[in-house]
Amino acid sequence: MKVEDIKKILIVGGGTMGQQTALICALHGYDVAMHDISMEILEKGFERLKKNCIRITASGEFTPEEGEAAIKRIILTDKPEIAAQDADLIIESVPEDPALKAKIFASFHELCKPETVFTTNTSTLVPSMFAHAVGRPEKFCAFHFHDIAITKIVDIMPHPGTDPETIALVREFAIKIGQIPIELKTENHGYVFNNMLMAFIGSALTLASRKVASVEDIDRSWMGVLHTPLGPFGMIDSIGIDTVWKVTDFWAQKRQDKHALGNAAFLREYVDKGDLGVKTGRGFYEYPAPAFAKKDFLTSGK
Amino acid sequence: MKVEDIKKILIVGGGTMGQQTALICALHGYDVAMHDISMEILEKGFERLKKNCIRITASGEFTPEEGEAAIKRIILTDKPEIAAQDADLIIESVPEDPALKAKIFASFHELCKPETVFTTNTSTLVPSMFAHAVGRPEKFCAFHFHDIAITKIVDIMPHPGTDPETIALVREFAIKIGQIPIELKTENHGYVFNNMLMAFIGSALTLASRKVASVEDIDRSWMGVLHTPLGPFGMIDSIGIDTVWKVTDFWAQKRQDKHALGNAAFLREYVDKGDLGVKTGRGFYEYPAPAFAKKDFLTSGK
Repeated sequence: MKVEDIKKILIVGGGTMGQQTALICALHGYDVAMHDISMEILEKGFERLKKNCIRITASGEFTPEEGEAAIKRIILTDKPEIAAQDADLIIESVPEDPALKAKIFASFHELCKPETVFTTNTSTLVPSMFAHAVGRPEKFCAFHFHDIAITKIVDIMPHPGTDPETIALVREFAIKIGQIPIELKTENHGYVFNNMLMAFIGSALTLASRKVASVEDIDRSWMGVLHTPLGPFGMIDSIGIDTVWKVTDFWAQKRQDKHALGNAAFLREYVDKGDLGVKTGRGFYEYPAPAFAKKDFLTSGK
Repeated sequence: MKVEDIKKILIVGGGTMGQQTALICALHGYDVAMHDISMEILEKGFERLKKNCIRITASGEFTPEEGEAAIKRIILTDKPEIAAQDADLIIESVPEDPALKAKIFASFHELCKPETVFTTNTSTLVPSMFAHAVGRPEKFCAFHFHDIAITKIVDIMPHPGTDPETIALVREFAIKIGQIPIELKTENHGYVFNNMLMAFIGSALTLASRKVASVEDIDRSWMGVLHTPLGPFGMIDSIGIDTVWKVTDFWAQKRQDKHALGNAAFLREYVDKGDLGVKTGRGFYEYPAPAFAKKDFLTSGK
């Protein structure tokens, strides 16, 4: 298959990432089928997708007419056989369970034509965990979006059995939908950006959980040297303390790393209190006017 | 001793950091003695210090008159007994050798009055490595500057025997000389910022040395998601590949960490070619117009 042959995209999973990828494909002229296990989930997701579309057209990147046309290119279906019809590329964004992903890909392998390319938008898993069940491992890779509101950076990552042509094709497709593809040559947990982010955040958490310095002083150091508007704890509040806890705890348990276990316990205290960051109005800082955003934050240490 | 009692600063070491700390103290009205083993070293350093002073007054932070007055407050001496006379605070920036630092502090302990506070501006060591030799361990801590041209962030770090009053005093002094003190509660390699930076740079190096992604794609990921002008390899070029190699190699050898050893070997290839980054005109990028600074860098992937 050539990139020009890709006409219809099947988005599996109607959650946040499914909505984002469906919208970005439709805005770039692709027909999109969104599939999930119930029409209720899909319709709820579609409402949010339409709001996102309005936000994007308001930013001026697309005209309101282009936005309306995009919405019309999206169909919703809870029937796998309808979803699979004529699909050229699947982008899967279902919950992060390897067994669930394996089952879904196996069933679409039966329903899709042989040329259809399968991709997973997993954040925390790697494709080799379920490549064996995909039925067409050579036509399968990871295609990972961060957050289309923040960045156009997308990761394209093979598992050991991916055909290089599949990578080349997904890469060309990424450019067609206006994204900036980062090509991984080999499978890697956390792709590129998330891998660096978690190393950086992990070291900040170790400093705080070991009480080497205060959360504010740690952020001040990063912001003050690099002249950036966010330090590591401002970033964690923005990502969600629960999300960072989940990833930190997963790796800490797996590696039985003393520092990482301490970091997970440190985060867990916030999670247990329901202080999850920006989304709950309180995390390491209080929102909507966090201390670090104030003009004198750098010089305001006691 | 109270912060008001501090009048004269003894800067030990006439290199880059000695010049920077001497200048910043003098600009804030302190008398400064700069000491090193030869007048030749001191005079060379003083020429660079005067150039830095012109740069700072040109930026408008100080008037040219304030700059001239500051220069007059600095004396140079290769005689320890003259350097030590009336010194209230020592800032030591000699080469990173614990035995050398121990010897220097021991000799100034004999020459200085009992109240004089001793600080080390070490980047890669920790004060407990030579606190035993200082003679007044309770009046000794780390006082670490990054680069006064880039940031006002300074670290203040105790060893287990530092009197909390010493920390409080150095902290007040840091504010008097216009810096932003970050107070460490416990000894920690790399202080706060450098600790996070090395974790972040280490993960970027591991991605590159394991050939997970290209240097450019790794920088692109960081810059594209966080909207910053520099990625990790742009930062390494700016710090100096030789410096990052030295620190990486030191810890890799010490911990016998497989990834870190691979990272050190990866950096070593550049060091051996003499490609040290911005200062040699070539590192991961070519200067003065590196690819990452070009407008289309994010979208210019092949």
